Amino acid sequence: MKLATIRTESGTRAVKLEGGTLVDLGYDDLGPYLAAGSPDPVADAPTFASEDADFAPVIVQPSKVICVGHNYGNHIQEMGRELPIYPTLFPKFAETLIGANDPIVKPAETDALDWEVELVVVIGRRVRRATESEAADAIAGFTVMNDISVRDWQFRTVEWTQGKIWEASTPVGPWLVTPDEVGGVRPALRVSTTVDGKIMQDDDTGTLLFDPVALVQYVSTVITLNPGDLIATGTPAGVGHARDPQTYLVGGETVVAEIAGIGACTNQVVTDS
Amino acid sequence: MKLATIRTESGTRAVKLEGGTLVDLGYDDLGPYLAAGSPDPVADAPTFASEDADFAPVIVQPSKVICVGHNYGNHIQEMGRELPIYPTLFPKFAETLIGANDPIVKPAETDALDWEVELVVVIGRRVRRATESEAADAIAGFTVMNDISVRDWQFRTVEWTQGKIWEASTPVGPWLVTPDEVGGVRPALRVSTTVDGKIMQDDDTGTLLFDPVALVQYVSTVITLNPGDLIATGTPAGVGHARDPQTYLVGGETVVAEIAGIGACTNQVVTDS
Repeated sequence: MKLATIRTESGTRAVKLEGGTLVDLGYDDLGPYLAAGSPDPVADAPTFASEDADFAPVIVQPSKVICVGHNYGNHIQEMGRELPIYPTLFPKFAETLIGANDPIVKPAETDALDWEVELVVVIGRRVRRATESEAADAIAGFTVMNDISVRDWQFRTVEWTQGKIWEASTPVGPWLVTPDEVGGVRPALRVSTTVDGKIMQDDDTGTLLFDPVALVQYVSTVITLNPGDLIATGTPAGVGHARDPQTYLVGGETVVAEIAGIGACTNQVVTDS
Repeated sequence: MKLATIRTESGTRAVKLEGGTLVDLGYDDLGPYLAAGSPDPVADAPTFASEDADFAPVIVQPSKVICVGHNYGNHIQEMGRELPIYPTLFPKFAETLIGANDPIVKPAETDALDWEVELVVVIGRRVRRATESEAADAIAGFTVMNDISVRDWQFRTVEWTQGKIWEASTPVGPWLVTPDEVGGVRPALRVSTTVDGKIMQDDDTGTLLFDPVALVQYVSTVITLNPGDLIATGTPAGVGHARDPQTYLVGGETVVAEIAGIGACTNQVVTDS
């Protein structure tokens, strides 16, 4: 099943893809839809054409966005680090998120804007200190994030937060795809980024050190995960910051962050006016 | 003016202290009250006795809680670091917060629970890329936080987040005190922590490296600050982790985190059942 949150003339709507058409699920976005237990749409639900859908962030107001660093072996090596024992966690906030095809506005305050394609776990039910099976059951599905990073601010201090939470920087979507469509709760899918058509990142989500179930268990040990919360599972090698020479987004590029079977965030980079 | 969010039989209420009585401000908590522009209470507003008030977190659902590390010279020295050029930022989440007198539950997963008294800026109006005067005007007032830290988890990886966001760990309150009561938007007030009556932290908020106005400017460069958002401005020397020998909360203690003229969070530490 493929779900999305789209923008319509009367605000955002949670929708389900059925035979090329988007069926209104009766909720403003997928957050409250998941919190309500993912009910089926009513028989005569309104529909929208899928080909001109304007995607909002797949969850508009997640109570938490937890991101994971250092989770693909080859990205850890390119950043010059040892394999970790524990996942590294950092935040984003709701205002940080944009739709899957929205422009990425390069802030005037940075000269080091970078890409990071990530598989994102979307939480479907409330869990705390989840067992392995509870964690698996709490996964509503997966989506794609381009964890846009403002590297100069990220590395101003020992904490990355200020480089990771920039307003309207981070596309997430377009689809929430249920686990049954991608081989379960530990999917092994090609994950890639292109910038103006050139492949920059190319890996497989099956090589994650901490898989989606393990991450739900770990984070839920610390704090309750609610329906609509997002866990971004980390990025593979090939970020601009780790290239030789370092390569950043300056404006004018088209960036495609894609996971096979889930979808792609395709974004133009524009400069701040 | 002293404001609070209290728990009543019919849910939480935003209140104002007037002559020893708490006057209902007409909102569920101070977050929506600030978002509405801090209107005066109606003439016949309900009142509550202040002496048996049950304080909720001063803001129940802040859209963001941004905390600052390394902001008092003597705490930076005790942690063995250089004076910083930029503030260090890390997050908490709404579920992390508790009321000013609620018990602090020591999670079974840690043996390194620590205290950190902090002056907290409460945002009163929406700002982005605030100038100095806009930042000053955006400060609704101040409150107190005990930034309870799970040190073993904080230092598992390079990012502190997982040690700072534990569920229901962090008292914030009891009062939101407006700047006019504490000498303006850069208050110089005694800030202290006692554990079972023994003074552990004792400093002055006037010695902050990055003052409240500077922090509102800095954070709002990165992301919009909304009414009810909290910026915890960092802690002075004397945390348990930096003591010799290291001293942690094990359960049974009474911890008082206080700022003169603003208030005190007084909490019993209890063990997880």
